[in-house]
Amino acid sequence: MDNHIYKRMRRKVRRAGPHSITKGRCLRCPSHEEHEGIFADKLHEECGVFGIFGHPEAANLTYLGLYSLQHRGQESAGICSADGKQMFVEKSMGLVADIFSEKRLRKLPGHIAIGHNRYSTSGSSILKNVQPIVANFSLGMLALAHNGNLVNASELRKTLEEEGAIFQSTSDSEVVVHLIAHSKGESFYERVIQALKEVSGAFSLLILRENELIAARDTYGVRPLCLGQVDGAYVVASETCALDLISAKYVRDIEPGEIVIINEKGITSLKALPVTEKAFCIFEFIYFSRPDSNIFGGQNVNGIRKEFGRQLARESKIEADLVVPVPDSGVPAAIGFSEESGIPFDFGLIRNHYIGRTFIEPKQSIRHFGVKIKLNPVRKLIEGKRIVVIDDSIVRGTTSKKIVKMLRENGGASEVHLRISSPPTIMPCFYGIDTPTRQELIASSHDVEEIRKYVTADSLAYLSLEGLLKIVPDSGNYCTACFDNVYPISFPGEHLEQLEFFFK
Amino acid sequence: MDNHIYKRMRRKVRRAGPHSITKGRCLRCPSHEEHEGIFADKLHEECGVFGIFGHPEAANLTYLGLYSLQHRGQESAGICSADGKQMFVEKSMGLVADIFSEKRLRKLPGHIAIGHNRYSTSGSSILKNVQPIVANFSLGMLALAHNGNLVNASELRKTLEEEGAIFQSTSDSEVVVHLIAHSKGESFYERVIQALKEVSGAFSLLILRENELIAARDTYGVRPLCLGQVDGAYVVASETCALDLISAKYVRDIEPGEIVIINEKGITSLKALPVTEKAFCIFEFIYFSRPDSNIFGGQNVNGIRKEFGRQLARESKIEADLVVPVPDSGVPAAIGFSEESGIPFDFGLIRNHYIGRTFIEPKQSIRHFGVKIKLNPVRKLIEGKRIVVIDDSIVRGTTSKKIVKMLRENGGASEVHLRISSPPTIMPCFYGIDTPTRQELIASSHDVEEIRKYVTADSLAYLSLEGLLKIVPDSGNYCTACFDNVYPISFPGEHLEQLEFFFK
Amino acid sequence: MDNHIYKRMRRKVRRAGPHSITKGRCLRCPSHEEHEGIFADKLHEECGVFGIFGHPEAANLTYLGLYSLQHRGQESAGICSADGKQMFVEKSMGLVADIFSEKRLRKLPGHIAIGHNRYSTSGSSILKNVQPIVANFSLGMLALAHNGNLVNASELRKTLEEEGAIFQSTSDSEVVVHLIAHSKGESFYERVIQALKEVSGAFSLLILRENELIAARDTYGVRPLCLGQVDGAYVVASETCALDLISAKYVRDIEPGEIVIINEKGITSLKALPVTEKAFCIFEFIYFSRPDSNIFGGQNVNGIRKEFGRQLARESKIEADLVVPVPDSGVPAAIGFSEESGIPFDFGLIRNHYIGRTFIEPKQSIRHFGVKIKLNPVRKLIEGKRIVVIDDSIVRGTTSKKIVKMLRENGGASEVHLRISSPPTIMPCFYGIDTPTRQELIASSHDVEEIRKYVTADSLAYLSLEGLLKIVPDSGNYCTACFDNVYPISFPGEHLEQLEFFFK
Amino acid sequence: MDNHIYKRMRRKVRRAGPHSITKGRCLRCPSHEEHEGIFADKLHEECGVFGIFGHPEAANLTYLGLYSLQHRGQESAGICSADGKQMFVEKSMGLVADIFSEKRLRKLPGHIAIGHNRYSTSGSSILKNVQPIVANFSLGMLALAHNGNLVNASELRKTLEEEGAIFQSTSDSEVVVHLIAHSKGESFYERVIQALKEVSGAFSLLILRENELIAARDTYGVRPLCLGQVDGAYVVASETCALDLISAKYVRDIEPGEIVIINEKGITSLKALPVTEKAFCIFEFIYFSRPDSNIFGGQNVNGIRKEFGRQLARESKIEADLVVPVPDSGVPAAIGFSEESGIPFDFGLIRNHYIGRTFIEPKQSIRHFGVKIKLNPVRKLIEGKRIVVIDDSIVRGTTSKKIVKMLRENGGASEVHLRISSPPTIMPCFYGIDTPTRQELIASSHDVEEIRKYVTADSLAYLSLEGLLKIVPDSGNYCTACFDNVYPISFPGEHLEQLEFFFK
Repeated sequence: MDNHIYKRMRRKVRRAGPHSITKGRCLRCPSHEEHEGIFADKLHEECGVFGIFGHPEAANLTYLGLYSLQHRGQESAGICSADGKQMFVEKSMGLVADIFSEKRLRKLPGHIAIGHNRYSTSGSSILKNVQPIVANFSLGMLALAHNGNLVNASELRKTLEEEGAIFQSTSDSEVVVHLIAHSKGESFYERVIQALKEVSGAFSLLILRENELIAARDTYGVRPLCLGQVDGAYVVASETCALDLISAKYVRDIEPGEIVIINEKGITSLKALPVTEKAFCIFEFIYFSRPDSNIFGGQNVNGIRKEFGRQLARESKIEADLVVPVPDSGVPAAIGFSEESGIPFDFGLIRNHYIGRTFIEPKQSIRHFGVKIKLNPVRKLIEGKRIVVIDDSIVRGTTSKKIVKMLRENGGASEVHLRISSPPTIMPCFYGIDTPTRQELIASSHDVEEIRKYVTADSLAYLSLEGLLKIVPDSGNYCTACFDNVYPISFPGEHLEQLEFFFK
Repeated sequence: MDNHIYKRMRRKVRRAGPHSITKGRCLRCPSHEEHEGIFADKLHEECGVFGIFGHPEAANLTYLGLYSLQHRGQESAGICSADGKQMFVEKSMGLVADIFSEKRLRKLPGHIAIGHNRYSTSGSSILKNVQPIVANFSLGMLALAHNGNLVNASELRKTLEEEGAIFQSTSDSEVVVHLIAHSKGESFYERVIQALKEVSGAFSLLILRENELIAARDTYGVRPLCLGQVDGAYVVASETCALDLISAKYVRDIEPGEIVIINEKGITSLKALPVTEKAFCIFEFIYFSRPDSNIFGGQNVNGIRKEFGRQLARESKIEADLVVPVPDSGVPAAIGFSEESGIPFDFGLIRNHYIGRTFIEPKQSIRHFGVKIKLNPVRKLIEGKRIVVIDDSIVRGTTSKKIVKMLRENGGASEVHLRISSPPTIMPCFYGIDTPTRQELIASSHDVEEIRKYVTADSLAYLSLEGLLKIVPDSGNYCTACFDNVYPISFPGEHLEQLEFFFK
Repeated sequence: MDNHIYKRMRRKVRRAGPHSITKGRCLRCPSHEEHEGIFADKLHEECGVFGIFGHPEAANLTYLGLYSLQHRGQESAGICSADGKQMFVEKSMGLVADIFSEKRLRKLPGHIAIGHNRYSTSGSSILKNVQPIVANFSLGMLALAHNGNLVNASELRKTLEEEGAIFQSTSDSEVVVHLIAHSKGESFYERVIQALKEVSGAFSLLILRENELIAARDTYGVRPLCLGQVDGAYVVASETCALDLISAKYVRDIEPGEIVIINEKGITSLKALPVTEKAFCIFEFIYFSRPDSNIFGGQNVNGIRKEFGRQLARESKIEADLVVPVPDSGVPAAIGFSEESGIPFDFGLIRNHYIGRTFIEPKQSIRHFGVKIKLNPVRKLIEGKRIVVIDDSIVRGTTSKKIVKMLRENGGASEVHLRISSPPTIMPCFYGIDTPTRQELIASSHDVEEIRKYVTADSLAYLSLEGLLKIVPDSGNYCTACFDNVYPISFPGEHLEQLEFFFK
Repeated sequence: MDNHIYKRMRRKVRRAGPHSITKGRCLRCPSHEEHEGIFADKLHEECGVFGIFGHPEAANLTYLGLYSLQHRGQESAGICSADGKQMFVEKSMGLVADIFSEKRLRKLPGHIAIGHNRYSTSGSSILKNVQPIVANFSLGMLALAHNGNLVNASELRKTLEEEGAIFQSTSDSEVVVHLIAHSKGESFYERVIQALKEVSGAFSLLILRENELIAARDTYGVRPLCLGQVDGAYVVASETCALDLISAKYVRDIEPGEIVIINEKGITSLKALPVTEKAFCIFEFIYFSRPDSNIFGGQNVNGIRKEFGRQLARESKIEADLVVPVPDSGVPAAIGFSEESGIPFDFGLIRNHYIGRTFIEPKQSIRHFGVKIKLNPVRKLIEGKRIVVIDDSIVRGTTSKKIVKMLRENGGASEVHLRISSPPTIMPCFYGIDTPTRQELIASSHDVEEIRKYVTADSLAYLSLEGLLKIVPDSGNYCTACFDNVYPISFPGEHLEQLEFFFK
């Protein structure tokens, strides 16, 4: 396997370029303009997981848990329950609250359950990729729910297929199931350990069997995973906000590299995976996790975000009349920025929350349409003012550009200063985040001044990487590959295609 | 008709009472506790309307207009279009973005269209009540979309039925259609005028015919209705946020008592209804309208709400560490309160916006469940602090109670001070707002101290009626019946049932 | 009203013509060829009705009754029930067994119910035309289910609209409801009598009120309607096969011109409509009714059809090897023909009964495709034989042509002799049957030899009108307008459009 | 594998017994009475298959083919197409004509396609069992459609699971796919041959790859499979009626043991499977296949069935007035019986063809309800007559009993003589027919006189096995295990459970 996996790519790469922006367009990057989707110009978390052992309402509580983790995946959801003897599964495309009726939850009896929320890129938005994955194999049945991404999945898949394996989905997570089925380990636990030793990448995963629940987290701890308790039952969830909703008490995080077995005998922790350095995803703080969650050792997301805003205010001072967040993700940093800078905070952009699954765009040209469907400026508030607008990140830049123009043209702002509460996103993620290719990330080929010209702001500043790492404790424990191109988990050459830009 | 309509009820009524709260419960009002619905403890606007004449994408723009007015009614929606010769209609239960697919919008050709969003009480949540109402009558077809409520509808209905009319719905709005059909007026316009002279109550309504659009507003101007222009087409909408989304320019409000006819000949204004005093609904400022809208003569809702917050801070000073809004409706007043009081503002309650249409509640008792599904406290932010929590109003008090307890128990607040940016709601509305009966309004039978004990807050203060009216210009032009029992439009005795409490 | 209704059209009209067939096509009638629908080349009954009073399972038995009357209308169905106080309604597009789930039937409580099956032409296949029609009027609620067609409906509608009536559907049946609502009669029964005196045409109708069931049949008795009893409850149904399924006993027919009221006081018969001659639809025997039903005074449909076949054999002798029915409608006559002629009977055409609601036709030309989807010849049975193929009627001739060709080309028949167990259909029906315009009826403009050439049969013979009338008792009591242009009920000029051909 | 497979069970077994019938009930077999389903008292074919190579409308023609094979499976259907590079699949529960819309067929491009109709017992009526089965394996993609049943599937499955295979369905057919994936054969064809050599049982199967179609039939030829041609394309189908509908020419049967490969190079026949004796399912003639199909070497089903009726008339003479078939399956034999006996034939039982997927039974007791929903006697035809009623087989006897009683009680027959056009069904089938357990087959434990008493007929006679075999050519080539307990394909012990009765 090793021969075609690249070794740790610690070397810094030169910036591709130089591109330059003329009249708000980069001639070398025409595709930036074409990306007009309303919701798409954000990075996306790919999944949320929830599991519970020992509760008479296991499926109902899993439903609630998934509901509170809905922000981690809105495309599909599934729940699998077990009653000690049999397993039951219900899964569909759609939002948790739309998928599960009372009738459907009644089809999920038992005291054990796991659930999964999924987001995925359009190509593979198909029912058969919806998790939990359920499979029959020689030792019985199992169900698996996975948050993260395995970087050596297609390699492992090829080997498995050569041994006769038949895959039902295009999901990387299915590889784990086949590895367990093909493992020569005697006990089920040995097989799980063997399988997890073979995979490389990020995983916070849950396995359900007829009579037990297993939780595991990769040795880097890329994605969060926490343990709680309610009414004597054990709960495992991606974020603590899921514990809160069901009034469960937070116990501790599942440790990086830990495998936890929960069954009638109680809770057992295996530390069978090799120890590596840690690589918590820093973007969980910047954008993915809910502000009310505490992650990576109990740090509150809202508090960290506000500190990012304060630090941003310290780093890039500006004279202005109003701090306006891009709702909802820019809100905590904007409050921090306002507090630190003394510039008043207000909601100059109102967000419409009644957004259905599909939205019909009119044929005629409505100015700034894509963003208008979600945001509208409060002209009476903004008119004639110098505005600092705060967002958490810039991906392609297309939405930022529309927001800046909207504030100026529809809102009547006299100046628009854009402040971003994270460093420039220059590289794609391979560990469970849906990022565009490097080519599409505007900061991979344009410097800050060029981006400023592109988004037509009066000034633009990002939070520095140093500033960012100053806020979080133990800053060496984080993956910041998307900002600095230092990938903590090596991956096979096939992924380099997405990095292509880089070698030009 | 007059003999059984009560004359203006200017006389003040004595407060029913005295009730008293023991251990957070009123023994005379057990029903307060039983109202456990998640979303129901709010007053609800009953409708939003949108119309356009002279645009090739009339139905598409109406779809967008309804989308931006979704906050005025989430139960059902409909669009009716016309191409000069024929009319087309599509309507369903559900949200605008879920109801209308591209395929369905293609079934609505033509350059004229009207649309309607509806909320209604559960009893009459039926498809046949969904608007626009479409009817064939002797002069051809018409479609009608109505925001508001007619107080003499059941009387008129009885008379019409005695003349042979057959009603298809239980909606008060259908009465207008029958009055037009039964009118002896020669021209269509005369018939409309005659019909509108007979009805009493609040109406901002749109009528579509094969080749024209008619907009009318009651003489009191209870509900907002504005006129705009885009690409040479005329637009009429409940709020200006609908104009903004389609890049239409605001022209002016449709005046109280005005009937506007828009057709190939241009725009004509009829002032055929009798002049009365004005009675703009003050609750549009407090809660119903979107913050980015400008209503009742161009006043910005966000700005007014912030002023309510400032005034509230001036009226009820308090020492505290943090101002926390109940999102989203409490946000602008909380910002105003924070600015005036100097107490920092932050989002101590996080709202989950992924709320589907139906939500399954678990059987087991989860503390504060009803409100948790929507809100979760950020414990690390709140813990040990003295919190001022800002909401726009209290209806039954059940949700406020849960929020106060949640902030204290789950959030760890040391003190919780509740501040309401409107006066106590003591009376129901008969002009187009879905209010509970007087019996259910906690402030109709309990004074502020009793309510404080009920919601278990450390202190409670409402904005005074005087303070409220100080903020809005021309304060004599507003209906404040829900606060002071002075109903500007008289109504028949049948409605007194809802006021029953009052005579005890 | 009378001045623009034509008086009885007893005068014989000259046959339009002469057309002539060359190479299986009529140059003057190109449209014959274009009618390629699989199911459409048949006349269609427009409705079936069922009602019951006094049974605890009223809606369930109505469901069964409609199920057994499904052949009278497959497009939509509805049931309305009442429990003495309230009325309940459920209706949809589709087949009875697909529309009504147990859950849906549970929404129809009460001991009284009426139901309706509907077929209609595509133009008006819309939900709002689905019956029972339910309406609120001054005396309360009523529901109405109607089999038949009113010839003066659009006239009456115009008058009613001038008086302010608003129509919800395009159905002629709604006129009855408005006439009742507008009637000045004091009691409900007087209003019904007044309304039924005003309408002209065919009606076998049921009216449901909160506490009673009313059945009425036009004075001509065009459509069948019978009375039965089960478990002490009264049942009214279009055909006796509905009584059989629920084990009800046949009591008698509802008489032409009779109005029957069934309520707590028992059963009352009103004979308040003027006496006219009778005009039973003879096509009920030929094609519409189910063979196991007994209609028009207890005559068995299967038996009559077999006699038609015997008479046909006597009238048009032929030397042949096999009698083959066009299934299912041609079967009884074919058995009669076989018995009388001594030529063996067999199923040379096999019918596929798994026909869904919509059928996708392939783009490529498959020979005789339209009919193949329903019928396939048994080549080993037919090959080299002289076949007599028996059908009940010819409408446009397009299906007959395909069947003849299929028997010859795919089946290998040496000769194909087509025998029709009714006279040539030359005129459309206005009394509740969906017929094409006169123009489209092949026999209206072509004589038998021309039709034979068109369908490419070796010989063709119809049953004579005299032969037909010889079989049924009291032959003067039948409407045979479709065969002889003698319309027993006069109708307004507007319908003449459909007869246009006639005046050429 | 061999050690737990029973060797050919040629030995005759003693009949279990003696049971005896008292008052129409067998005290030892209470379960007979409880089986009240309307449609269930019939043996059921489990599948139909259709494939085509080289036609631009491949999916459309497959749709038509499945439509004409709908009688072989009504529970679910699927089509998989390929365009030389990619494969596409659409499958659902339901009838072919309901599942496939034009839109859905457009999702199946390409010039190659296979399709499958499925019936299955309720336990496994799940979407994941719907065929074609689609799988990715090391050599690419394949889709498989299978008619028949593999007797050693669960054994093979166990072995495969021990090797790490993960099964997605409970279907025996999936075993073939895994055997191909696990095979060490070099070419795909070698792998198919290896896989088919390992399975034991009945299979008429189709395999689709990106660029070819493979058809295979087990060495016994249990289920039919024929080859045709249309427009230069090759077609493979379960029955010839599918060829007829698309105007394809019948070429020949796929031979028992033959593997046919159809691709760009043309058609190739492999004879790689061992030669065995033949065992055509005789029940295909008795009940399963459509009367217009020619099977097992071109024998017409209708003709054979009629001869069964003639032979039955010769074997069991009776004096009677009317021969009445149980429609539709009893019709051909009834015509043969009538011709041979000279007793007139008529449809004394009328079948309602509008049967939806689910049918609600009323709570109250309606006599003979289960069968009434499908059949109604024509009393005027039957009354007072001695009736010979002809059915193709008796399974549990419950439906026959209801029919006999209905003819007597509702129809008024003076005598009812039941004649069955096949021998007593005493044993279950393991080769692709859904049969009840031996316990439930009434003839396995009761002799003819006992069954007669149970069904309450005046006389009962079955066609003798000798008589049956006299009609078909080469009678040694048929499987008659259900009649004589001689199973041509040996099977593992696990199946003996279904035969349990046998050893009592």
